[in-house]
Order: sequence, then structure tokens, then C-alpha cells
Amino acid sequence: MKIEAVDFFYLAMPEILDIGDGSQDVLLVRATADNGQEGWGECEAAPLVSIAAWCCPMSHSACKPVKYSVLDKTIDTPADIRKLTQDVRRNSFDLLQADHTLAGVDMALWDLLGKQSGEPAWRLLGWEKAFPKTAYASQLFGDDPEETLNKARWVRGQGYKAAKFGWGPFGADLAADEAHVRAAREGLGPDVTLLIDAGTIWGEDVETAALRLPVLHECGVLWLEEPFFSGALHAYRELGGRMRGSLRTAGGEGAHEPLMARNLIDFGSVGYIQIDAGRIGGLSSAYDIARYAEESGTTYVNHTFTTPLALSASLHAFAGLENSRYCEVPVEPSSLARELTTERLDIDNKGLILLPEESGLGMTPDPDTIRRYLKPVEIRSGDSLLYSTPVI
Amino acid sequence: MKIEAVDFFYLAMPEILDIGDGSQDVLLVRATADNGQEGWGECEAAPLVSIAAWCCPMSHSACKPVKYSVLDKTIDTPADIRKLTQDVRRNSFDLLQADHTLAGVDMALWDLLGKQSGEPAWRLLGWEKAFPKTAYASQLFGDDPEETLNKARWVRGQGYKAAKFGWGPFGADLAADEAHVRAAREGLGPDVTLLIDAGTIWGEDVETAALRLPVLHECGVLWLEEPFFSGALHAYRELGGRMRGSLRTAGGEGAHEPLMARNLIDFGSVGYIQIDAGRIGGLSSAYDIARYAEESGTTYVNHTFTTPLALSASLHAFAGLENSRYCEVPVEPSSLARELTTERLDIDNKGLILLPEESGLGMTPDPDTIRRYLKPVEIRSGDSLLYSTPVI
Repeated sequence: MKIEAVDFFYLAMPEILDIGDGSQDVLLVRATADNGQEGWGECEAAPLVSIAAWCCPMSHSACKPVKYSVLDKTIDTPADIRKLTQDVRRNSFDLLQADHTLAGVDMALWDLLGKQSGEPAWRLLGWEKAFPKTAYASQLFGDDPEETLNKARWVRGQGYKAAKFGWGPFGADLAADEAHVRAAREGLGPDVTLLIDAGTIWGEDVETAALRLPVLHECGVLWLEEPFFSGALHAYRELGGRMRGSLRTAGGEGAHEPLMARNLIDFGSVGYIQIDAGRIGGLSSAYDIARYAEESGTTYVNHTFTTPLALSASLHAFAGLENSRYCEVPVEPSSLARELTTERLDIDNKGLILLPEESGLGMTPDPDTIRRYLKPVEIRSGDSLLYSTPVI
Repeated sequence: MKIEAVDFFYLAMPEILDIGDGSQDVLLVRATADNGQEGWGECEAAPLVSIAAWCCPMSHSACKPVKYSVLDKTIDTPADIRKLTQDVRRNSFDLLQADHTLAGVDMALWDLLGKQSGEPAWRLLGWEKAFPKTAYASQLFGDDPEETLNKARWVRGQGYKAAKFGWGPFGADLAADEAHVRAAREGLGPDVTLLIDAGTIWGEDVETAALRLPVLHECGVLWLEEPFFSGALHAYRELGGRMRGSLRTAGGEGAHEPLMARNLIDFGSVGYIQIDAGRIGGLSSAYDIARYAEESGTTYVNHTFTTPLALSASLHAFAGLENSRYCEVPVEPSSLARELTTERLDIDNKGLILLPEESGLGMTPDPDTIRRYLKPVEIRSGDSLLYSTPVI
């Protein structure tokens, strides 16, 4: 099939709130082949900027727009998609945003090839089997410990076997942090796995982060996520070395290309490597890290805070890793995220989530939803119309 | 002073060629304070995308446009600029392109503050003295060894004491690479320092890169630049360990935030850390790496392949490092780059380049040049005009 068109749809809630909810907007990507087959993908965050990286004029040989390496190219096999990903990275080497744009395009191409061949994307990627994952409910801390307690009780009542609390007020005050972690544990009860996300609040300050270790140990927390900036390899390694029992560091969502994630494994010694397929360049790159994690004895986890389409894509990337059991599921998504796809990924009564055998990514965006939340974009430079959102 | 406006001017040559010449377009940044004072900076590559990162709508609390952290803020001291840089990084955490946009804005703010206080930017940054640097002529390899030989002879005739050859055909064929390196040495003669830039051609393949070590040793090459992708820390360390004499690895131009550069020093053990102030987030971040390099015994070098404004900014960042002597100077810039500023940085008869005592960055863009090369940009989303190039 030849890739005849790639279209971007910028969807957003009517009002974007200044909170850490990543599901308030979506950059949906549709790839259309010359035989009419369609595939869908999604880029993480800053839709307008990722559209610009698709259509901008070339700056020089190593700074071409993403479309240069994609349009009119032929994809008939998984190797063709992998080559295309490499081409984007080489041709758009100096275009920083290119990795995020590539992410949604790469997903759409796996979806396209999967539909064309009647295979789920995980099988095309190279997995033999899709293992069920334990869904962990991912949400923001409450504004105070009581709200965190109530949120934890709610999650437990919903049947989740694991839950993560993050961002919000966490990280600024030791006593408040301790109260929030204890409230989360109390609300979840003793048997639900508890995960904590510090949202890089401590930068690279190991000592301040380490003050939280006693309460994390006391409350049986499984991982402390992003205590530091993604690149603070020294800090990750040092804090990880001070952890006892089953507590480990987790990080990696900021990685926008595979080597950044590998460095967190090799030099940062993270216990859990968390990959956002919508940032790292799509399924090709996410799958590579899943394999790398397997070889190096690190546990792979998806990072997903947006739609069911992004969730499905992120699951395909590590479907075949039996020992990487946890899967992030946002539990407070926006109406946009809830309404985006006609299919959804259900969680069974054991708290498990399993990819269907559907071809491609198995998710179909609803055209009515797209039209309802669409923000049309137009980009001009001089006399050229570089981008205009198509009619859907 | 309050930052009242920040304007972006996308300048480009009439025709952009598919070659590794980064001076074919420019994103010029003008910051204007409420007292009328102006400062100028420059972002590296993909102008349209960096403009989009300035003006895009917020996606969520950690994905705000760069302008959110800049407009209407007050800068009266160096600490104010440093805080603003930190704010951009926190507020635009998930906006990948933000670092490149920040780079030009941060430069313009140091220029602005320097002009306001009558001090050169290097002094405001924290250096006590500006040391002269040995200009190295930076150019592309010839298409064949004979062209490389002629280029090397020309450079020598121009009085340069050091020269770098890179990109072009280099890296694909061992025998051809050897011929190019020998031609470069022959053309430069025995006394001119020879530097080689592989442009990441070997990805992370240490063995293929190592095949070039004998000819680099034989020809007295000082550094081998970017044999690998910026993030391939393992590969840098391993190849560096196999080098003899004064030959060292060099890399870092791809770093878009300080931790990436520090990881190349700490884990990649590069001999020379090369920073592009137009990518790493501006002078604030480049200066931090200069200080870090000094502490860790690594030599700092600028990466500059664009205009005299970018060259001046890059020099300010490491002006005070006496032992970091080399300075990259592009010798085949486009007419746009040559005509951009009314001032230029001259190289004396010893091959040295020295920053003037002018306030700020000491460079003034010529309004006629801006008008002549300007590509007006207009970005719309829904009913909103998000960006429109102002009249100059």
C-alpha cells in the first residue's frame, strides 16, 4: 500500500483547565492508503506544534518536515514501517518535535497494516501472545488527604487491584506528603497495590526525595514514579540504591526516543521503565524498549493519560511481556476521551485488561465525536497554505 | 523592566537546498521591554515549529505555550532570567519543542538586560573575563578527496589555525573516509589543528566507528565529533576508551536541556562537550554546562552553524573558560547569515576571535535584511489568530 494521505485532527475540550489532566486535548492522526484502507493513531500533547512539525518547510538536509519521510511511501510489511521510522529520525534529526509527531503517525501505520493483513498490531510487532495486564487506576492526588482517602476508597470499590496517585499537591511538604500516602493506603486497604507519582517535583535533589522513603516503605508502595527529571540518571540510581523491600523507582515517560529510555535502564537503574507510545515515536520505538527491558530484567509499564486509542496502542507495544503485568488506565478522563472511540477496553472482575484479537489497534474513532470537539487549524507561510484541517 | 512583547521573524533563503548547511534559514527573536529597550536572540532550525511552541493553546498544566512563562514577566537581574528559564521548563514540560523556542527567547533576554545595564552578556552570566578563542573553520567535506584537499588549502590560506570537516560523504566507506582525512591533513599542512565530524553516521555501532581510529591517529586529528547519536552514552564511552594520544570524542550538539549534556560528560566520557545555545535553551543553560564542564575537566566547545548573532551568543556562554580554547565558526554561511547583523566577529591574524565589550550580545540585526528574507507566518485555530508576523 502507498501512504496517500496523513491527516491530523486537533480535538479539545471547550475549556482547558490548568490541572495535570492530559486528556483535555487530543491530536488524532489518520493515515489513508491508496487502496482506501485507514489507520488511526494519536500524538501526546501540544497538537498544534506536532502539526507544525508535520508540515513545516525544510531548514536543511537533517531538518525536514515529518511528512517528507512518510507521504507516498509504501508499507507492505512491518519492516517497511520500521524503515520509515528510521527515515523520519534521520531526515528530521534537528526537528525536536518530530518524535512526538512521528508517534501518532507510526501508530496509525501499524493500525493500517494490521487492518490490511487482518492481524492485531501486537502480532505484527513481534509478540506471539497478548497477556492480560493488571489495570492500575491512575489519578491525581486529592487537594487534601481526606480527598485522597475518598478517591482511594472509590477506586477500591470499582474493583481495581492497583492504583496510582500523583501530581496535585504532592512533593512540597513532607508531613502533608506522608498524610497523603497514608490516606491512599488506608482507602485502598491492605491488598490493593499502591503506586506514587511525584511528577519530577524534586528535580535532581536526592536528599529531599529520600525523606519520603520511610512512609513509602511503611505503606508498602510498589514504585515511586518520577522523583526526578527524566535525564537525572545519577539521582535515579542513587535513590534506587536506598530503597528496601519491593519499593523501586519508576520513570521514562519523558523519553522521546529509545536511547533516553535505555539510559534510564542502564545508568539510572530504574525498576520500572514507563513508556508513552505517543511521545517516544510510536509503537516501533515502544516495542524496542519493551524488548530491551525484558533483556535487562527491568519491568515495562505503559504511560497513558489520554484516550482509549492511546491506551490500546500502549498495550500493543508490550502485550507479549508476561512479567510486565501492570497497565496504566486513566480513570478520570475527559468526556472527549470517553467519547472518542466506539470500542473500549474493559476491565474484568479480576481487575484485568486484555487486548482483543481485532485487527490493527482495534479502536475506531467516532466521526461525530471528532466533529464535536474539532479545532480546525490553518498554518500559512508567505503565499503557501502549509496546513488546513480537512473536512471529516 | 517588564517583557511587553516577544516577536519572531522567520527568515529564509529563496531556495533551501537539501544539504547540511544550517544557515539557510533563521528564526530571529526580538524581546521588547516596557521601557522600549530591545534584545535579540535566535532559535536553531525549524522556525515554524518553534513559533507554534510559543503560541499554541495549553494542553494541560504541564504543557503550556512558552509565552505563558515569558510575557508580562519582569527581568531586572540575571536571577530573573534564570527563574524565567526554569518556569518555561516546568510549565512547558510536555511540550518537546519548547527548549528550542526558549533558546532564542533566553538569548534575547540576556541581550536586553545587557543593553539596559550597559554590560556584556558574558559578565552578567558570571564570567570575570572574556578570553580569546581559536576560531576553527567549520565546513562540509568535499564530494571527493580532491575537493576536500582544495577546501583544506583554502582554509589554511585564510589564516585559520584549526579546521573541521564533516557530513557530506563521510562515514559510509572506510577507504573513502581514509582518503578524505588524509586529504584534509595534506591541505591543512602539519600545523593546523584537524577536527572530524561524523554527523552521527554510525548510530551506536562502535566497531564500524573504530575502523577509522587508525587514520585519525595517523593524521593527528584532535577530536572525532558525533560518531554516534547524542544519547548513545555506552558507545561514546567505549570508543573514547580506545583512542590514543590526544584524540578524543566530541558530542553534545543534540542536547536540548542541560542534563542530556551532563550525561554525555558523566556517562559518555566525551573529551569535548559541544553545546548549541540555540537548542539547549539559550545562554542560561549553555553557561551552566560550561561551568559543569570546567568542574569535570571536560573541554567546552560551541556548536554554531548559523549567523554571527548565534556565534556571538555561543561565545558569551563560555567566554570565561580559559582552557576551552576552540570556537566553531561557519565559513560557508548563506548570504542571509552574512547579511543579518550590522556588526561581525572578526578573526585576527593569529586566528583568534574575541568578544567585544559591547553591552548585551553586541549584535544588531539589520532591518533591511530582515525584510528582504522574511517569510510571514500566520497560524489560526478555530476563530483565533494565534500568530501573525508583525511588521518590521
